[in-house]
Amino acid sequence: MASWLPISPKSHFSLANIPFGIISTPGQSTHRPAVAIGDHVLDLSAFAQDNGFSKLADFPSEKLDVFSQPTLNEFASLGRKVHRTTRAYLKDVFRQETPYPELLKDNESLRKKALIPLKDVQSHLPLSIGDYTDFFAGRNHAQTVGALFRGPANALQPNYNHLPVAYHGRASSVVVSGTSLRRPWGQVLPNPQAKEPVFQPCSRLDIELELGMFVCKGNQLGAPIPIDNAEEHIFGYVLMNDWSARDIQQWEYVPLGPFNAKNFGTTISPWVVLADALEPFRAQGLVNETPLKSYLNESRKDSILDINLEVSLTTDKGNTTRITQTSSKNLLWSWSQMIAHHSISGCNMRTGDLLGSGTISGLESGTQGSLLEQTQGGKVLVQLEGGEERKFIQDGDTITITGWSGTSEDGVVGFGECAGTILPALVRD
Amino acid sequence: MASWLPISPKSHFSLANIPFGIISTPGQSTHRPAVAIGDHVLDLSAFAQDNGFSKLADFPSEKLDVFSQPTLNEFASLGRKVHRTTRAYLKDVFRQETPYPELLKDNESLRKKALIPLKDVQSHLPLSIGDYTDFFAGRNHAQTVGALFRGPANALQPNYNHLPVAYHGRASSVVVSGTSLRRPWGQVLPNPQAKEPVFQPCSRLDIELELGMFVCKGNQLGAPIPIDNAEEHIFGYVLMNDWSARDIQQWEYVPLGPFNAKNFGTTISPWVVLADALEPFRAQGLVNETPLKSYLNESRKDSILDINLEVSLTTDKGNTTRITQTSSKNLLWSWSQMIAHHSISGCNMRTGDLLGSGTISGLESGTQGSLLEQTQGGKVLVQLEGGEERKFIQDGDTITITGWSGTSEDGVVGFGECAGTILPALVRD
Repeated sequence: MASWLPISPKSHFSLANIPFGIISTPGQSTHRPAVAIGDHVLDLSAFAQDNGFSKLADFPSEKLDVFSQPTLNEFASLGRKVHRTTRAYLKDVFRQETPYPELLKDNESLRKKALIPLKDVQSHLPLSIGDYTDFFAGRNHAQTVGALFRGPANALQPNYNHLPVAYHGRASSVVVSGTSLRRPWGQVLPNPQAKEPVFQPCSRLDIELELGMFVCKGNQLGAPIPIDNAEEHIFGYVLMNDWSARDIQQWEYVPLGPFNAKNFGTTISPWVVLADALEPFRAQGLVNETPLKSYLNESRKDSILDINLEVSLTTDKGNTTRITQTSSKNLLWSWSQMIAHHSISGCNMRTGDLLGSGTISGLESGTQGSLLEQTQGGKVLVQLEGGEERKFIQDGDTITITGWSGTSEDGVVGFGECAGTILPALVRD
Repeated sequence: MASWLPISPKSHFSLANIPFGIISTPGQSTHRPAVAIGDHVLDLSAFAQDNGFSKLADFPSEKLDVFSQPTLNEFASLGRKVHRTTRAYLKDVFRQETPYPELLKDNESLRKKALIPLKDVQSHLPLSIGDYTDFFAGRNHAQTVGALFRGPANALQPNYNHLPVAYHGRASSVVVSGTSLRRPWGQVLPNPQAKEPVFQPCSRLDIELELGMFVCKGNQLGAPIPIDNAEEHIFGYVLMNDWSARDIQQWEYVPLGPFNAKNFGTTISPWVVLADALEPFRAQGLVNETPLKSYLNESRKDSILDINLEVSLTTDKGNTTRITQTSSKNLLWSWSQMIAHHSISGCNMRTGDLLGSGTISGLESGTQGSLLEQTQGGKVLVQLEGGEERKFIQDGDTITITGWSGTSEDGVVGFGECAGTILPALVRD
């Protein structure tokens, strides 16, 4: 599908995508919704103000102010049907033979106001996050890390194939791509034999390559979401880097799980790729031979997404190396299964809740989503461009995750970048 | 200190208290701030509208709309000094020889409008909760429960005395006292030898007696809160029942901690007792012989609160039995230590964040804050009034926590009640 707006065939933001985000610009500091299209964004606040949505018959007109909100929560809460029609309408607005040329294509004044070069906008967190839950659905990661800690025979805990293991994460410190994070201080054991911890900056700072999913519609407390309805609760997806302080985690995590090792920051990409945009890229994930309890049995068997994922590391010397190349098919549990399990206790989900997939890894070298796996627990160095090498993340390193589905022919559906740089730890007295 | 308003000497809401909450009434469904005083509440929205705060010199007048908000977040965010002067002012308004009789004491029309019998108001969550974190600072609980699982020699994990262990909890399902909760479904092992889980309603539903603390002022991401500044971040306290599905927890909690076992609901009391109101009731907590890292060393040595705590169980037959009588001195870590540890990684706290203390227990029978402890892991029955007995919570049981400091002579500073009833599990096909 071609557009009257020049869009590079390599662009993550083809007409097949239309991802939603929150922007501000040097001239207008108000946070407001936008969609990304090629090298531009369409400012939905300006577009709505100039009657851009006047031909969208299905849209509840009293709800048009969702496009002047500082987050996407209100738009998300309108539900899948509204997302679907809005996205289809915006595709129509941009395609070569648009039925509505007067709205934007031939409307120079609105184009000038609402079509902004992507490089000129600042992105912000797309939704206000209620709760953030991180799953552990990447079985290859669980297997490899479990083997490092407990040996291959006991790598997976007995519950692993029966339920999607998860923990509640920290919502306040989820940041948008481009936000730098400080290396955390914490208590760590100075060596595996030590009994007494020391207090120092993390020395085993790691990444976790994940997908994130935003919830559009919640459920009442006490009313679990049936698995075959779960997709109605999915707004869309982002890339996620769940930064992890391995040495802090190792000391703190018994018996209640990771805490400070994770709560210093989680980075997400700014553009939410709607569930509908990824509908053509469904696949089977890892095979689970374990018979599942009824509430986890879903009718669809292609409910895992097939997204190409890459991680690159750029050192403070400017050398960039792709360290990971994998696919989101490396998940055991689908998003519907995660939602069904999360709510089976009666737990209520809310618009804006963020769910992480857990680390996505293959089993071979170069396909693993954490340095812990790639370095076999810090024992093997990862070789970088320019002769540099890493066991874990050093100060000044920038980690950039990218992800996309589709082809140049049919239109790439991509996420753009999820990037973050680690700053040196604070100097303490 | 006497009041012109009749206040029973036994009232939790003496002039020495002045706790803040959010109410609505049959005639006015708007959620709005109030303080509890004796058997009444003062509707702060009505009071502010009729110039009730006109003699409060220190209050920033442009901020008076904090008293017409649906939560206490904006009031809390004004900081400790404003809470202190506002509370002192409201005490002055209510005392026998008030310097401002014209404001309320002699203002019949405002009294009629703003002084509402406590029994006629509905309470709501006092703050909008950003993140909820549950600590594990009750060492007696950790000791007893650890001994049940791992034997007395390994009861406490090696990290326990070095840092306040915590996990991120679920904010969406924190409910106010009086909200009924459904018994959760989940995966459990049918017996200790079983390898395969079954899917059924929780059969080991338990309580956890805790204190909760609300954060008034946050910190920037990357900037830890120094321990001796931590009290400036404390708004006030509530009672908390951290309902726990022990059988679900046992199966799910490795390796990432409790999830569905806790996220079906956490009950808090409606009135936030301000930090200043509890200042006279400071004490030493449990003694920690372990040398602490610098960031956990606080100047004050009386930084644990001394609050009398009781739990009663009322069966659906109407029999009420006090099952627990203890004190909040049974904590190893102070709130300042919890805040300092929570933020040492750089994790940002926000106004409205809720921190739980962890289960508060003595070591003797009748002083323990969970049934798991009282029944020695479900092996010993707790005897109730009317010849009933319990291992864990049955459908229709109501758990009521109360807590107070001080005496009738000097004025009780109490929390009122934190109550919740367990409804039968949903019927599933």
